[in-house]
Amino acid sequence: MRLSRYFLPILKETPKEAEIVSHRLMLRAGMVRQQAAGIYAWLPLGKRVLDKVCDVIREEQNRSGAIEMMMPTIQSADLWRESGRYDDYGKEMLRIQDRHERDLLFGPTNEEMITDIFRSYVRSYKDLPLNLYHIQWKFRDEVRPRFGVMRSREFLMKDAYSFDLDYEAAKVAYDRMFVAYLRTFQRLGLKAIPMRADTGPIGGELSHEFIILASTGESEVFCHRDFLDMTVPGEGVDFGDGAGLADIVRAWTTPYAATEEMHDTAAFDAIPEGDRVAARGIEVGHIFHFGTKYSEPMGASVTGPDGRETPVFMGSYGIGPSRLIAAIIEASHDENGIRWPASIAPFRVGLVNMKPGDADCDAVCERLYAELEAAGLDTLYDDEDTRAGAKFATMDLIGLPTQVIIGPRGAKSGEAEIKDRMTGERQTMPIDDVVRLLSAA
Amino acid sequence: MRLSRYFLPILKETPKEAEIVSHRLMLRAGMVRQQAAGIYAWLPLGKRVLDKVCDVIREEQNRSGAIEMMMPTIQSADLWRESGRYDDYGKEMLRIQDRHERDLLFGPTNEEMITDIFRSYVRSYKDLPLNLYHIQWKFRDEVRPRFGVMRSREFLMKDAYSFDLDYEAAKVAYDRMFVAYLRTFQRLGLKAIPMRADTGPIGGELSHEFIILASTGESEVFCHRDFLDMTVPGEGVDFGDGAGLADIVRAWTTPYAATEEMHDTAAFDAIPEGDRVAARGIEVGHIFHFGTKYSEPMGASVTGPDGRETPVFMGSYGIGPSRLIAAIIEASHDENGIRWPASIAPFRVGLVNMKPGDADCDAVCERLYAELEAAGLDTLYDDEDTRAGAKFATMDLIGLPTQVIIGPRGAKSGEAEIKDRMTGERQTMPIDDVVRLLSAA
Repeated sequence: MRLSRYFLPILKETPKEAEIVSHRLMLRAGMVRQQAAGIYAWLPLGKRVLDKVCDVIREEQNRSGAIEMMMPTIQSADLWRESGRYDDYGKEMLRIQDRHERDLLFGPTNEEMITDIFRSYVRSYKDLPLNLYHIQWKFRDEVRPRFGVMRSREFLMKDAYSFDLDYEAAKVAYDRMFVAYLRTFQRLGLKAIPMRADTGPIGGELSHEFIILASTGESEVFCHRDFLDMTVPGEGVDFGDGAGLADIVRAWTTPYAATEEMHDTAAFDAIPEGDRVAARGIEVGHIFHFGTKYSEPMGASVTGPDGRETPVFMGSYGIGPSRLIAAIIEASHDENGIRWPASIAPFRVGLVNMKPGDADCDAVCERLYAELEAAGLDTLYDDEDTRAGAKFATMDLIGLPTQVIIGPRGAKSGEAEIKDRMTGERQTMPIDDVVRLLSAA
Repeated sequence: MRLSRYFLPILKETPKEAEIVSHRLMLRAGMVRQQAAGIYAWLPLGKRVLDKVCDVIREEQNRSGAIEMMMPTIQSADLWRESGRYDDYGKEMLRIQDRHERDLLFGPTNEEMITDIFRSYVRSYKDLPLNLYHIQWKFRDEVRPRFGVMRSREFLMKDAYSFDLDYEAAKVAYDRMFVAYLRTFQRLGLKAIPMRADTGPIGGELSHEFIILASTGESEVFCHRDFLDMTVPGEGVDFGDGAGLADIVRAWTTPYAATEEMHDTAAFDAIPEGDRVAARGIEVGHIFHFGTKYSEPMGASVTGPDGRETPVFMGSYGIGPSRLIAAIIEASHDENGIRWPASIAPFRVGLVNMKPGDADCDAVCERLYAELEAAGLDTLYDDEDTRAGAKFATMDLIGLPTQVIIGPRGAKSGEAEIKDRMTGERQTMPIDDVVRLLSAA
């Protein structure tokens, strides 16, 4: 993409309303714009990151056997009356009446709807296990939305729902998602720690929050230092091997880790002092097993191998891609701006033409731009006639992993300057080697 | 994808509520399910088609220079008060109050919001032309939603918005989208005819609807037979060449074509009788130039080369991917089910194992399944132990372009039966040739 034809509204001033660094950087880098309290438009740069985060989530959901679908944003209130949550949910639910005065709502989550879909089609245990997910906008009418997309009212959520015949099978489904989540966060460049968590309005007894440590975290968390060095399963992990998955989950849930609500001071104090980590954390995922909480009142049951009808055991599994992006920035930035992990960077390469209009610079940059794109390296080509300082500041702010800088002297002598945004390292190399080197990285 | 692990709830009975063939087939093929009046969940098969349709639309939008972003579904009523449309829009607008009793609405379209975004960042003609689009769920509270996703209340829409300094530049932007739309519909397997159209609540003077001819169309349309043989521009069309685009648009707007509201009986009767086409049509896209209708009241202006501030000239350009899918089915089906164009088929190949459990059949099918997927041919592998008639009926119903059928005799002798769903042709060929032949197709 040529910057001269792109829409990248960089802000020079730090917006006053932004209290945390991710919010400030997302506004300054032209990623999002607030349209109403807690409601954001994703500008082109932000949209690219959102798509890449969703792609990683989707790949790992699919790998674990979950199947993608798409539920609507607007739901009928009647479904929520069946489960009993219509009144429970309180003012966070955005309630709506249509022109015929029927009660609707903007879905804050989809347990009721997916249970309704399940019961209308599935009759036999032979169709289990089943895990259906979608990535769709949700709305929760927070009293005080803040921190940008970290705590917004309209937000994107990947929510998966598992259906199994009994608790044992449901536990395997839970473990599958647990491992998929470990892999997802690792690929997004995050060290996420699963912590026993309160189940809140979703309900159920078994639940983990995935938390990343960040000084701007919303809550206090406590865990064993061992977590910081644990190895996440590779992409060859066998999602069909229940025992193997259970081993992984056991290893990841044995050391102490808890959020503030679930904190057990005595257990924490039993850890050697040097291994105790008390820090602030950001929740980036939350998984629940809640058995028959919805299937029973809503009549979602299957015939088992013994011919008897039983309500299915269910779990739900959420990740918020929009808030995740803020969390990634909290975990990966410096005083100059964002530092994107390559897996979700809006562009892989920023190509900087230091002197547009100079015949050598233009020729080298045009050639590199074409070659980088042809090699599958998404490139943002700064072809604008602005001063050097502004060019560098913008590239650092938007945080593309690699900057390729072409000045008049280098263009003549055949040399490019390469800057790695994550490490800050700079090196000079022959222009002819640039594409090959970056393709191999 | 293995059918045994997929979620494909085929209905055996034709649902009574479905009045048109696309609605019947989408319900029977397990593509969608109604969750409330005019509100649909997209089941896994439907979601795959929706994604593919969006990919084609996105590619052609990007090719023409439009830039993708994402606006929220919920909008502030204040923006619509600024443009004067809050009261005009009537009961089709879903109006909402949040917990603080602020007036919100579920966006039926985004002219106001994009104008607000534009005015907050863009100051100079140097940043023009600009065309921003998003693909987002919309809601229009139809009195009587019907025909499935053809006229639903919650629906997906690609809406693009162009900004230019004056009418001449805005006309080029309009022509760019006009040509992008011709290409998009062609790639989706549709013959779409641009017709002069009424501008309705969007406003403006220049507007075309893209209409496909189908006996179940909602309105009567009239055009010259010449349209049926016109050539759509190839992917090499130069979107930077305003004069070239204008020539294409002129060619596509010179023969008579009009919807019922814009019909001119005298002009139509002047066409030689054999060249008159009076038929029913389905609107699949609608483009508008409306000048300064929103930019003027909302103060979206730029400084021109002469230093004077002028309100920008705008257009908007909509395609509904969800309704488009129904239109494609109306145009491409037979008595047994859907016939997908390959560009948007949910899977490219349906692999049918006639006798799961038979060692030869299983071995051949497993190998073919792996090879088809490795060749980039999305495959739905029917590995279920059901009777032959049901297998064939399902494959015809869901309409995958190619069926590869492996029975015990063929598995032994090394032969596969191939069925082309569009033509109905069947042929037998060596199993070893299947992947190569389908890859080349």
